[in-house]
Amino acid sequence: MTKNKKVNAAILIIGNEILSGRTQDTNTSTIALWLNSIGVKVQEVRVILDIEETIIDTVNHLRNFNNYVFTTGGIGPTHDDITAQSISKAFKLNYEIHKDAFKILEAYYKPGEFNEGRQKMVWMPEKANLILNPTSGAPGFNVENVFCLPGVPSILKSMLGGLTNSIVGGEPILSHTISLRTVESEIAHSLTKVQENNKDVEIGSYPFFQAGKLGVSIVIRSEDQLKIDHCNLQIIKFVTEKKIEVVDR
Amino acid sequence: MTKNKKVNAAILIIGNEILSGRTQDTNTSTIALWLNSIGVKVQEVRVILDIEETIIDTVNHLRNFNNYVFTTGGIGPTHDDITAQSISKAFKLNYEIHKDAFKILEAYYKPGEFNEGRQKMVWMPEKANLILNPTSGAPGFNVENVFCLPGVPSILKSMLGGLTNSIVGGEPILSHTISLRTVESEIAHSLTKVQENNKDVEIGSYPFFQAGKLGVSIVIRSEDQLKIDHCNLQIIKFVTEKKIEVVDR
Repeated sequence: MTKNKKVNAAILIIGNEILSGRTQDTNTSTIALWLNSIGVKVQEVRVILDIEETIIDTVNHLRNFNNYVFTTGGIGPTHDDITAQSISKAFKLNYEIHKDAFKILEAYYKPGEFNEGRQKMVWMPEKANLILNPTSGAPGFNVENVFCLPGVPSILKSMLGGLTNSIVGGEPILSHTISLRTVESEIAHSLTKVQENNKDVEIGSYPFFQAGKLGVSIVIRSEDQLKIDHCNLQIIKFVTEKKIEVVDR
Repeated sequence: MTKNKKVNAAILIIGNEILSGRTQDTNTSTIALWLNSIGVKVQEVRVILDIEETIIDTVNHLRNFNNYVFTTGGIGPTHDDITAQSISKAFKLNYEIHKDAFKILEAYYKPGEFNEGRQKMVWMPEKANLILNPTSGAPGFNVENVFCLPGVPSILKSMLGGLTNSIVGGEPILSHTISLRTVESEIAHSLTKVQENNKDVEIGSYPFFQAGKLGVSIVIRSEDQLKIDHCNLQIIKFVTEKKIEVVDR
């Protein structure tokens, strides 16, 4: 894979607790920032219920349309953790004890503590690759382009570093943010022109409230720093002409 | 629609800033909690890029499989706000100035401040119903079962109350949480049995870290309080037998 190729990914959050609103998802942002840093762009995120058929169908769809798929949640020891068995069915693989995962957890727990509940966590699709877990022992796993991670944010975060070598990204996606003391409608017209003149750069406009004051952050994103710089100059030009205060650049 | 019918919804988050990881989505949780309180269950969330074709295809899919669809983002004044035009195309409706929205914003702004950028916000699918915005003037809109809300969390939040009468929910989804000082593997087997004995109740198990200690929250969800109580008793029974400390119930 050449470094210039665009590489994309989907994130699949598996968990009723996000859909009920009880838990605020933070894994999307964690995974997306990490993927950006290694040149992978997140195309889509889906949050779905803990239902086997839904997991199978969604994984099979996403893995065909993305270079990589990252799932979070459903790999713990309880009855509502059905990601591993669902992924096995999605790939038509046996769902079985992973010998290396068994050894890892046998060594991780004190003698006698590797009980039935914990042993559920070593059942995986056959021949899955393990994703090591430096925080709490139980590994995630990967089959082809699908990577299955836990839902607990701190554990997930600790596992991403070990994954970096398994992912072949494109050029890192760079960004530059300019924060202005203005409102979107004041700059909308000028910004549209800049976007039209810089079609292959992504320009986003995001209002913010900070210390009781309104502002707008303009975010320029591209794999090419020169294109970002070029676009930035054009924005600074109209901002200066309009005498808009720059809060941060 | 009878009160017993299950009513479901999908949430569609439109915005590159969520997929890049720059912004942490909080609207899913806000909308889901509100929907639960009026008896609507969120089946699915999708986060997609600001691309017209993607918005059209996703909206047309979700509106066929859900009683309601709520979109967030992309209804502001800048070039990257393309939700209204995309929804118009999804429904094959004209994209035009909404007279009532125009009147609202004309009255909202000081004379001379209702500029070109702001006027973009009154372009909507023809005959759209307005969703009033008590925070910043610019209304959202609704076409059939699709409701389009802004992305800024505080503004979105302020608009939900006014929508409650437009949504016909089923029985409110009730929940009960029991927080235990234990780890999931200790209770996994007993909890599986309780789930098997209470198939129409949703039981979730969620590890937590609090003040340096590990715990597990068990969440029981159903439209029927009696079923929740019945299930709760069976959980408390095994928790007591296992001498597990109850942190909160």
